[in-house]
Amino acid sequence: MESKRPLIFVTNDDGIEAKGIHSLIEMVKPFGDVVTVAPFRVHSGKSHAITVEIPIRYRLVREWENVKVYGCTGTPVDSVKLAFSAILPRKPDLIVSGINHGSNASVSVVYSGTMGAVIEGCINGIPSVGFSLLDFDPDADFTASVHYGQKIIQHVLEDGLPETTCLNVNIPRGPLEQVKGIRVCRQAKGVWREEFERRLDPRKGEYFWLTGYFVNHENGATDTDEYALSNKYLSVVPIKVDFTNYNALESLKRIQHG
Amino acid sequence: MESKRPLIFVTNDDGIEAKGIHSLIEMVKPFGDVVTVAPFRVHSGKSHAITVEIPIRYRLVREWENVKVYGCTGTPVDSVKLAFSAILPRKPDLIVSGINHGSNASVSVVYSGTMGAVIEGCINGIPSVGFSLLDFDPDADFTASVHYGQKIIQHVLEDGLPETTCLNVNIPRGPLEQVKGIRVCRQAKGVWREEFERRLDPRKGEYFWLTGYFVNHENGATDTDEYALSNKYLSVVPIKVDFTNYNALESLKRIQHG
Repeated sequence: MESKRPLIFVTNDDGIEAKGIHSLIEMVKPFGDVVTVAPFRVHSGKSHAITVEIPIRYRLVREWENVKVYGCTGTPVDSVKLAFSAILPRKPDLIVSGINHGSNASVSVVYSGTMGAVIEGCINGIPSVGFSLLDFDPDADFTASVHYGQKIIQHVLEDGLPETTCLNVNIPRGPLEQVKGIRVCRQAKGVWREEFERRLDPRKGEYFWLTGYFVNHENGATDTDEYALSNKYLSVVPIKVDFTNYNALESLKRIQHG
Repeated sequence: MESKRPLIFVTNDDGIEAKGIHSLIEMVKPFGDVVTVAPFRVHSGKSHAITVEIPIRYRLVREWENVKVYGCTGTPVDSVKLAFSAILPRKPDLIVSGINHGSNASVSVVYSGTMGAVIEGCINGIPSVGFSLLDFDPDADFTASVHYGQKIIQHVLEDGLPETTCLNVNIPRGPLEQVKGIRVCRQAKGVWREEFERRLDPRKGEYFWLTGYFVNHENGATDTDEYALSNKYLSVVPIKVDFTNYNALESLKRIQHG
């Protein structure tokens, strides 16, 4: 007889060894049976990338209580697709991704492998939530993430999410008692200012390391994710899978007339 | 003395040897000075991926008339970032990406490296347009793409684009005389149904190839990109960099209350 408990699918982009994914498994374990398929190695900045030129492989890495963890050689989005196609016994009731080590607020949602997996779940009609903690420390404190994350999971399991909408949850750094609560908000406008650091290899060939810093273009706004986070609230941004700018449709129709 | 002609930046995800990028260069060459930075090799399905774990390199590959072509070891988005940071003499007036061999209509925008580069340009405040032809043939006929593409480029150079909005242009397959015109439309709802093809390697280890087909969830709708394309029109979809679902903000505020 199949389990009647919710089936919860877990993935991330920091790889199966990251502390964040183990905190996420602990977060969702009380709510149902947990199957994890996540990259063997770090896939930061992989966005919605899929692997089309080489094949991928997976294997069961660990299993305990109601949890199975598989490693996969592909990207976060590959992990979701492979799970749907070859690993999960049925469509999951919920997809969670993370807990990412580092922010995916504002425009970072575009680059994020964590959120790539979430958007993939959403495209497939599954309620999907990404979690990111504003702390790059491999041994970061995920206590607040787990505490508030469970509240959010409870809501999503009970009420679902609006059609073709998933959630981008970011958690401020710090211990539980410093976090003030949850704010549903919009994505702040901003940009990563990049500089490529030029270096020379031992044969004098030049190479470039990507480096940069985030610039918030809306420092005055109080309804953004960046504002919530800087005021020690979790930010919850509903993300659409339809990227159409409906407001621009009419004005652009002039293009139709040659 | 610096040129007063527009500076046009060209990139793609099929690599600098693809026929599509050379057609794109021919398309935009009459409008200004052209600098191309694109991946050396194919980067299909790379979405908005950036390279953070290894450094990248680039070199000038070809130069003629008002055109320079650089190859880069990174992704399409890396190519844009590297160009801005290390190669271009100033901010470009226009970014174009493609012409992709294959459709990027509907939900494919999410996976597309072509559109990843376009969205990156848009995040940086540059009018940015991606072009994709519904023909995977390496020797595809880009005549209609170039003809209508020039009309679109003319519009964008003259009028600009709405703030934080870029264009996803898809071109139906076939000769110029079969293409009926341009339609500004919205992204159709759809999904890629994936199946992973399981194979065994010579040592009996299993591996999986990603394969799949697109399912249009809106076959009845007449205002979508898929509808325009199936009726032999170019589709032009304005794409937003803000992924927030504003319509969902209010209903989700219940999450704030624990």
